[in-house]
Amino acid sequence: MFRHVVLFTWSADATDEQKAAVPRRLAELPGIIPQIRSYVLGPDAGVSTDTCDFAVVADFDSAEDFLAYRDHPAHQAVIAESIKPILAGRAAVQYTVDA
Amino acid sequence: MFRHVVLFTWSADATDEQKAAVPRRLAELPGIIPQIRSYVLGPDAGVSTDTCDFAVVADFDSAEDFLAYRDHPAHQAVIAESIKPILAGRAAVQYTVDA
Repeated sequence: MFRHVVLFTWSADATDEQKAAVPRRLAELPGIIPQIRSYVLGPDAGVSTDTCDFAVVADFDSAEDFLAYRDHPAHQAVIAESIKPILAGRAAVQYTVDA
Repeated sequence: MFRHVVLFTWSADATDEQKAAVPRRLAELPGIIPQIRSYVLGPDAGVSTDTCDFAVVADFDSAEDFLAYRDHPAHQAVIAESIKPILAGRAAVQYTVDA
């Protein structure tokens, strides 16, 4: 299994509506991009002080399937239209997970 | 389920031996800290250029169980002895995951 983890920090002026659009639109992607095996996302719970704002943990069968997801037009559209306009920071890792 | 995701960036002078100690020591924690339900960790695969170096995705039954893990002496020891000495950056999110 190949896992992609990305953490987003939103800009200070991001509206609640803009922030809510991200999970709503990302949640559509498993129905559009067949390579997605698992897609677990959500806003930070506010339990710690030094955290980012949003997490996506996406699992694939292979690195190639992750790249198909990464470059898929539907994914790129969410990034361009809903994420980039309110993005202040991004951190990501992709790693191989034992079955 | 309550998920904790943390991404680490290692300092440029971190040795391979220091970097290898992190997964080795973290992998001991599920045997020590009973609140850990799932603990999936690993180094970045180098598939993308703009990534951090290491990821931990840890699942718990509740936020309280995550806090017990966070503050557990065995976890704190790994942070103090193996992670902080080579840490250049850290990004984290904790979020509630639908069952």
